[in-house]
Amino acid sequence: MKIAGQNYRTIWPDPNNAKVIKVIDQRHLPHQLVIEDLHNVADFARAIKEMHVRGAGLIGATAGYGMYSAGLHAPADRFQESLKADGDRLIATRPTATNLAWAVQRQLDAVRGVSDAAHGMEILYRTATEIADEDAEFCRRIGEHGLAIIRDLSRKKPGEPVNILTHCNAGWLAFVDYGSATAPIYAAHREGIKVHVWVDETRPWLQGAKLTAWELKEEGVPHTLVADNTGGHLMQHGMVDMVIVGTDRTTRSGDVANKIGTYLKALAAKDNGVPFYVALPSSTFDWTISDGVREIPIEQRGGEEICQVCGLTEDGRNEKVQIAPPGTATANYGFDVTPARFITGLISERGICPASEAGIRELFPEKFI
Amino acid sequence: MKIAGQNYRTIWPDPNNAKVIKVIDQRHLPHQLVIEDLHNVADFARAIKEMHVRGAGLIGATAGYGMYSAGLHAPADRFQESLKADGDRLIATRPTATNLAWAVQRQLDAVRGVSDAAHGMEILYRTATEIADEDAEFCRRIGEHGLAIIRDLSRKKPGEPVNILTHCNAGWLAFVDYGSATAPIYAAHREGIKVHVWVDETRPWLQGAKLTAWELKEEGVPHTLVADNTGGHLMQHGMVDMVIVGTDRTTRSGDVANKIGTYLKALAAKDNGVPFYVALPSSTFDWTISDGVREIPIEQRGGEEICQVCGLTEDGRNEKVQIAPPGTATANYGFDVTPARFITGLISERGICPASEAGIRELFPEKFI
Repeated sequence: MKIAGQNYRTIWPDPNNAKVIKVIDQRHLPHQLVIEDLHNVADFARAIKEMHVRGAGLIGATAGYGMYSAGLHAPADRFQESLKADGDRLIATRPTATNLAWAVQRQLDAVRGVSDAAHGMEILYRTATEIADEDAEFCRRIGEHGLAIIRDLSRKKPGEPVNILTHCNAGWLAFVDYGSATAPIYAAHREGIKVHVWVDETRPWLQGAKLTAWELKEEGVPHTLVADNTGGHLMQHGMVDMVIVGTDRTTRSGDVANKIGTYLKALAAKDNGVPFYVALPSSTFDWTISDGVREIPIEQRGGEEICQVCGLTEDGRNEKVQIAPPGTATANYGFDVTPARFITGLISERGICPASEAGIRELFPEKFI
Repeated sequence: MKIAGQNYRTIWPDPNNAKVIKVIDQRHLPHQLVIEDLHNVADFARAIKEMHVRGAGLIGATAGYGMYSAGLHAPADRFQESLKADGDRLIATRPTATNLAWAVQRQLDAVRGVSDAAHGMEILYRTATEIADEDAEFCRRIGEHGLAIIRDLSRKKPGEPVNILTHCNAGWLAFVDYGSATAPIYAAHREGIKVHVWVDETRPWLQGAKLTAWELKEEGVPHTLVADNTGGHLMQHGMVDMVIVGTDRTTRSGDVANKIGTYLKALAAKDNGVPFYVALPSSTFDWTISDGVREIPIEQRGGEEICQVCGLTEDGRNEKVQIAPPGTATANYGFDVTPARFITGLISERGICPASEAGIRELFPEKFI
């Protein structure tokens, strides 16, 4: 997607040095576009853990390239063991995102039994590229499927914009390209359908204010930033036609772990008859579990994200300001689980299905054998 | 209540000069305790509008003293007209809070027909004092009634703290003393009942992080600060025993307008079987309306509250930082309406009642004649 009119992905190999992988260090957005070079597994692990990169698909793609980087530095005589250890190290960085373990496992499966390190490297690079390209392609298809929903809503209010609320950033910055929740929005906008996006700022990390607002601006999609507290009021007053969010882990029964606060918006959507969609490439499914509230581990992050806010001062300096009394105890849960009963539909690369085991089975029968 | 061990109210006449009213300028909390002198109606209007003072009860008490100040400066030959004009000016500062118009009207009623300005001044001062004292006394009684609920919950989990979630600041800083939502908490804490408070930070203005966390700390009540997005997750996992919030306007049928985001917490409480209480002195009732969502005007505030966050830098300076891309469109609704069907009970100075016309009529029969 576009930054200042130029096309970007969120992660790509350095064209001048295939041993280096480039990412957008998203901690500096929206104030500054910083491109970071990742050289080794330590770089990849830090980039994921400290959220230089974040979002379901991008974490997966980064882990894919991270395993390639692990291969580059693996001793030839302990190639498999070294890869396995580095994979575990990557998986340990973020506990909730399922794409992370999925991408690592895909790489380990790809090189299983390969003893020649040079051959292994080829496979790891090819697989990392596949993971990234697939992520982009799946998001593009999600866009096509979701577009149909927006087109239908638009026909019901000719001349008026379709108002779509989203929480956090399930935009192209959370994937390799297009995004999941944003893909249908970008597709509709490109087709000339009037859309307007309510952007939840998404405390504590402010992914909405810092990332979603920025990428919508760069793509020219009309949007309004609101505090996370606002969605219920908007829905009570008919100002939201649909909600689309992403997911970091989805159970086989359709429960969805997404950014903390998603569940509250789903409750409000249900209470006001607003359709609530979750967009996801199938890599976010955790096929092994079905009760999201009980079975999905929820990451807890540091209290400084609650007590301090980073931003730009009037004179253009990055500054961190303390908003709570010093020493205040905090709890910082990164995700919550929205039970399937609140979800109107899942928009996947294979189409739209009900958020239920039966619905998901229709689209992904091979996973239920 | 206590600040650094010393007892304070939020508003009081200067003991050395009865023409000056003192308030805590809450914009500087939690970092600095600033006492401001209010000299005339312009000072009072600015203090309310720009939120040096805020909160249902305190806005009412400030309006009460503001009318006294209006009287001090009213020309003797146009005493009534001048008071009326200044009252309108005060009422215009905040559209949602019902205590504001209530306090102004109470003062106008008190001096109706009084032509002697000196006599009028006496009445205005006495009435302002009555409004403030009544507010404190009503909050104290709310504490006694609500204490019974906390005591019951505590008996069900001996040795464990009762976990109470609150949104925004309906603490003593929002009233003259004790607070509404916090009064039962302070009463329980004083009685030795173990309590723990989940404090919603309450974006955009951060009343929870800046005020509620601070006043609980000064009173020694255990608490944990969370992003507004967190309450649903906490309730899903049995970490909340009850919710208590305040209200800025309450309909005769029990709908409640409170800080934006309250409705989302009420939805989560309902979905998880957590009791949801609203604490209120009866001055927040608007007896003329019954459909809160349709009839309560919702204040919209400036977008800078969304795009910028104020706090303290590491080297102790107050600084405002920009968190969204420059020029981002925003919507900043100050309140939302929680329909009565989500409310377990209203805790008023006269006792606890169901949030319904029948329930409210039992406690306030004289309002339904």
